[in-house]
Amino acid sequence: AETIPVSEDTRATAAMLRDKALESETAYTILESLTTEVGPRLGGSEKEAEAARWAVAKLKALGFDKVYMEPVTVAKWERLSESASVVAPYTQPLHITALGKSAATPEGGVTAEIVHIPTYEALLEADAADIEGKIVFISNRMERFKTGAGYGPAVQARGKGASEAARKGAKAIIIRSIGTDSHRLPHTGGVNYDADAPRIAAAALSNPDADLLERMLERGKPISIHLDVQTKEHGDVTMHNVIGEITGREKPDEVVLMGSHLDSWDLGTGAIDDGAGVAITVAAADMIQNLTKERPRRTLRVVLFASEELGLIGAKQYADAHKDDVANHAIGAESDFGAGPVWALASNVSTDSLHVVDTMAQLMQPLGVVRHGRKAGGGPDVGQMVKLGMPGMDLMQDGTDYFDLHHTADDTLDKVDPAALKQNLAAWVVFAYIAAEWPGDFR
Amino acid sequence: AETIPVSEDTRATAAMLRDKALESETAYTILESLTTEVGPRLGGSEKEAEAARWAVAKLKALGFDKVYMEPVTVAKWERLSESASVVAPYTQPLHITALGKSAATPEGGVTAEIVHIPTYEALLEADAADIEGKIVFISNRMERFKTGAGYGPAVQARGKGASEAARKGAKAIIIRSIGTDSHRLPHTGGVNYDADAPRIAAAALSNPDADLLERMLERGKPISIHLDVQTKEHGDVTMHNVIGEITGREKPDEVVLMGSHLDSWDLGTGAIDDGAGVAITVAAADMIQNLTKERPRRTLRVVLFASEELGLIGAKQYADAHKDDVANHAIGAESDFGAGPVWALASNVSTDSLHVVDTMAQLMQPLGVVRHGRKAGGGPDVGQMVKLGMPGMDLMQDGTDYFDLHHTADDTLDKVDPAALKQNLAAWVVFAYIAAEWPGDFR
Ligand SMILES: [Zn+2]
Ligand SMILES: [Zn+2]
Ligand SMILES: [Zn+2]
Ligand SMILES: [Zn+2]
Repeated sequence: AETIPVSEDTRATAAMLRDKALESETAYTILESLTTEVGPRLGGSEKEAEAARWAVAKLKALGFDKVYMEPVTVAKWERLSESASVVAPYTQPLHITALGKSAATPEGGVTAEIVHIPTYEALLEADAADIEGKIVFISNRMERFKTGAGYGPAVQARGKGASEAARKGAKAIIIRSIGTDSHRLPHTGGVNYDADAPRIAAAALSNPDADLLERMLERGKPISIHLDVQTKEHGDVTMHNVIGEITGREKPDEVVLMGSHLDSWDLGTGAIDDGAGVAITVAAADMIQNLTKERPRRTLRVVLFASEELGLIGAKQYADAHKDDVANHAIGAESDFGAGPVWALASNVSTDSLHVVDTMAQLMQPLGVVRHGRKAGGGPDVGQMVKLGMPGMDLMQDGTDYFDLHHTADDTLDKVDPAALKQNLAAWVVFAYIAAEWPGDFR
Repeated sequence: AETIPVSEDTRATAAMLRDKALESETAYTILESLTTEVGPRLGGSEKEAEAARWAVAKLKALGFDKVYMEPVTVAKWERLSESASVVAPYTQPLHITALGKSAATPEGGVTAEIVHIPTYEALLEADAADIEGKIVFISNRMERFKTGAGYGPAVQARGKGASEAARKGAKAIIIRSIGTDSHRLPHTGGVNYDADAPRIAAAALSNPDADLLERMLERGKPISIHLDVQTKEHGDVTMHNVIGEITGREKPDEVVLMGSHLDSWDLGTGAIDDGAGVAITVAAADMIQNLTKERPRRTLRVVLFASEELGLIGAKQYADAHKDDVANHAIGAESDFGAGPVWALASNVSTDSLHVVDTMAQLMQPLGVVRHGRKAGGGPDVGQMVKLGMPGMDLMQDGTDYFDLHHTADDTLDKVDPAALKQNLAAWVVFAYIAAEWPGDFR
C-alpha cells in the first residue's frame, strides 16, 4: 500500500490547536458545570437521565452539528443504606460502602465472625469448612503504579469474591477498598454474581478500617461484626448514550470515535471518573469546530456512554447497534482515567498508517508525551468497537493518584488540576484533528 | 534568689533517656492499643468509661506507683443521625457532621434557602432581615500554619456562630469545616449556645461540599437545602480523670503535671486527638521509672483528662478539686496537638529557673527543638492549673498537617508517624525528668 503523508497544513493546524488548548478553559468549564449542576449520576438512576439532558443541552449550546441520543436498557440498582461495626470483643464502627449491584443482607443485617482471607487467590483455595457461616474479609492491598497496573490484580476480590465466598457458605463478604489512599472513604465499584452461587451482600471497607480489622485479628481472638446492607433492584429502565458530532466535510459517514462515560458512581460527583473524560472529549471536538477554517474530512463523533460503571452497558449496546457500521469507524479513543497528564501514545493501527501516529506523537512531544507500543485497547467503552475491528488509540494518562479517589465520595472537582486538564485537551485535539483530517486509512 | 544548677548527673540521665526514647516502641504500642481496642470515646459516653478502664489497666500493667481515678460530672450528649442535601435548583447530597452538643432540627429536618455569610464577623454585622427564616452558611476557610494559628480565628464560626445566627432568626447554621484538608470528611467540634438565644441545629460541611455550595451560589439563584440533625441530651453522668503517678523519692507531694485528654470525638478513633498525647505522656513517665536508677525527687503525675472536647470538663473539675494544692504543682505541660514533632520549647517560669529551661532546650537541640519565649499557656487542660498559678511549659509541635485530620473520621492510627512519636517522647522525657529531678523551684 502507498504511504499517504500528513500534510504540512494539517500539522500546522494541529500545532495551533494544541497551543490554544493549553490556554483553553473550555474543558474545566464543562467539568465544573457537570459536577456542580448534576453531581452524582448513578447508571440507571434519574440522575443519569438528568446528566443526559445536561449533556444534550451542553452539546447544543456549544453548536455541535448533530446532537442525539441512542437508547440503552439498564437494570436499575439502588443503594438504600449500609452500616457495619465490630461488635466483639471490641466495639467500633466501620466505614463501609456497599459494592455496586450488591445484594442486600437480611433485613436488620447479619452478625457473624469474620474469617480473614489475605487475597482472592487464597479464597479460591480456602476450605469451605473455614468459611461456612462467616463473613469473609479479604485484606489484600492494591499497589500504586503510574499505569494503574495494581488495579487489575486487586479488583478480582471485588468483582468475583462474593460468588466465590458464597459457594463456600459465607454469609457476606467485606473487602479492603480497591484504592491506594489512607482516608476513611471506602471505594465502591461493581460486584458480579455468578448464576450458580447464592447472592450475598458485598461491601468495601475504607483502608484505615481494613487496617483496624487486621490489627484486631492480630490479637488472636475471634472478631465478630455486624453488617447491614440494604439495596434494591428495580428491573430494566431506559437510559441513553448521548452523541454529539462535528460533521466531516468530505467523508461525513466516516467517524473518529471519541469516548468517555457520562454516568458515575453515586458516592462522589464523578469529577475524575469520568467527568474529566466528558470534558476533554467534548472540549476537543468543540475546539476543532471553532478554530479550524473548515470542518475536518471525517466526522468527529463524541459519545458519552451510559451506565459504564454497571458493566459497560451503554458501550455494549452501542457496539451492538453499530456492528454493521464498524467499517465507517475510522479510529477511536477514550478518556476515562481522570485528569492526570497524558504521557504516552499507543495504537494498534496498520503499519502503513503508523507514521501518522508518529506525527501525532511528535506534535504531542512538547506536552511530555512519548511514543508507546502497538497495542491499544481503546478504553473500556470504545474498546467494544475495537474488539469488532475498529483501530484504536490509547492516550495513556499518569494514574499515580487516580486510585486515591476512584469510586469514592472524594471524587470531586477540587481534585482536578486545571493545568493537567488542559494538557489532556492539547493531546486530544492533536489526535482528533489529525485522525479526522488525514485522508488515509488506519486499517 | 540563688541559682540552683542542673547537675551533670541529671543532664547525663536526661540525655540517656532522650536517646533511648528515640528507639522506644512504648508510645506507639500504647496508641495502637487505645485506637484498636477502644477507638472512638466521646466524652460522657459508655466508650469514655471504657477508655478509662483501659487506661487504669494500662497504667497498672506498666507498674505505675499509684493509679487512681477522680470523678468528673459531664452533661451527656449523643449524636443520633445527620444528613443534608441541596434540593433546589440542583439536587446533590452534602457530607455534613453535626457539631458537638448541637441541638436537633425538628423531627424530619428543616428545608430552607441558605444565606451565604463569608465570615463570623460578617454574621455579627448582618441584617436580621436577610437571615430570618433561612439557614446560615459561613464559608470562611481556615488557613494552614505550622503553629495552628489559623484555628483561633476560624473556630469562632463553630463555637459562636449558632447563637448569633439564631438571634437573627436563622433556622439552622452550617459552616465550612474548621480544617485544612480537601477530603469529604467534615470536622466536628463543640458548639456553645448562649442562654439568650434559641438553640438551632449546627453542622459542618466537608471542605469539598462547602466549595460545591459556593459554586452553586455563584450562579445567582436561590439555593435551598434540607438539613436533618438528630441529637439527644441525657443529663449529667459521672466520668473520670485517670491518674498515674511515679512517686517522688524526696518530695512525693510535689508533682510535675503531665497532661493529655482521654476522650475523643466520636467520628474518628482519636489517634492524633488525643491518643498521641496519652501515649507520649504515659510512655515518658514509664521510661523514667524504668530507666533511671532511682525515682526522681518529685512525683510525676500523668493525668488523662475526661471530656476535654465538651469544654475542658475534666480539667476544670481537676483544677477545682486541687485548687488548694496549686503550690504543690511544681510545673506542668500538656500534649494535645497530634504527633507532629516538637520544634520549640516555651515556658512562663521564674527568671531564676529560666536556666533550667535553657538546659532542657539544649538537651532537646539534637531533636530539632529551639528555645521559644516566656509565654506558655500549658495547653487547654493543664492550662486550667496554670491559670491558678502553676508554672507551665509548652512543648510546641509542628501542626502543619494537624488540622487536615482534627475532629474527623480520618483521625486514625495510620496518620501517626512512628518516628515523630518517638521524637515527641524524647523531648518529653527530657522535660519531665529534669523538672522532677532538679531541686529548685520554677516559681
Ligand atoms: Zn470510568
Ligand atoms: Zn469507574
Ligand atoms: Zn485535643
Ligand atoms: Zn479536639
